[in-house]
Amino acid sequence: MGYVDAVISTTGLIEFAPLNELTIEQFHTTVNNKILGHINLFQIAKPHIKQGGSITFTSGYVAQNPMPGSSAVSFVNAALDAFVKAAALDLGDSLHINTVSPRFVKETMLLMGMNSETGISAADTAKAYRHSIEGQETGQSFDVVDYIN
Amino acid sequence: MGYVDAVISTTGLIEFAPLNELTIEQFHTTVNNKILGHINLFQIAKPHIKQGGSITFTSGYVAQNPMPGSSAVSFVNAALDAFVKAAALDLGDSLHINTVSPRFVKETMLLMGMNSETGISAADTAKAYRHSIEGQETGQSFDVVDYIN
Repeated sequence: MGYVDAVISTTGLIEFAPLNELTIEQFHTTVNNKILGHINLFQIAKPHIKQGGSITFTSGYVAQNPMPGSSAVSFVNAALDAFVKAAALDLGDSLHINTVSPRFVKETMLLMGMNSETGISAADTAKAYRHSIEGQETGQSFDVVDYIN
Repeated sequence: MGYVDAVISTTGLIEFAPLNELTIEQFHTTVNNKILGHINLFQIAKPHIKQGGSITFTSGYVAQNPMPGSSAVSFVNAALDAFVKAAALDLGDSLHINTVSPRFVKETMLLMGMNSETGISAADTAKAYRHSIEGQETGQSFDVVDYIN
């Protein structure tokens, strides 16, 4: 395997449910997938990303804006945002590391039979990932709404 | 086992080290102890805390204020702060849930042979836990420096 310019990770099974219905196993699933899935990928991918390249994780709007039923989702996303902020201090210019924080994707809402009026299209969501890859910023969490236009 | 008024958790092995020295196993240790240790305790303790009681986790200053070498520590503490913020929405008045965010404890610094001038004593640190237990606030992260006097 050679070197790549950038890695984007969108991995992570998450469990939305009221706290009194969430099992320990569901918390473990969320933590293992959304936190350790990204950290494992970071460790494995890092030697294969060229100097000054970038890696972008996917967190989510509920990290800083919890809603009922989001306890197992908010905290893993907040963990990723905090990880990149801290990791950037150690990585310096060798590797840019950021998260993109998506909102509900319009196409997903349509597939789920929801009113998609408040959704953000996949194409618009992708703009924040492009910003993360093409820019020189590091340790940031990019809210997709800031990169639509 | 009967009911208790409040539970305080200070559990959690953590690993301070530069990111390029941290192994996947060290990340797993930190996540398993500091995140899942608290979540497991929450799930186990909840049925034993009386209605309107409280549970307090321990996060830390580096959650929102990372420093070099804190990547595996910042993100687990940030996760706990985000968890209680989200969990409080589901729990309402049935159970108050907060974190206390300590600074470096003076006695610990002395034991480690460090200059303890900037440390906060264990007795002063305890005041934030008392505030968390005795107050009616929920979903908050209490910085110990705000409760010293």
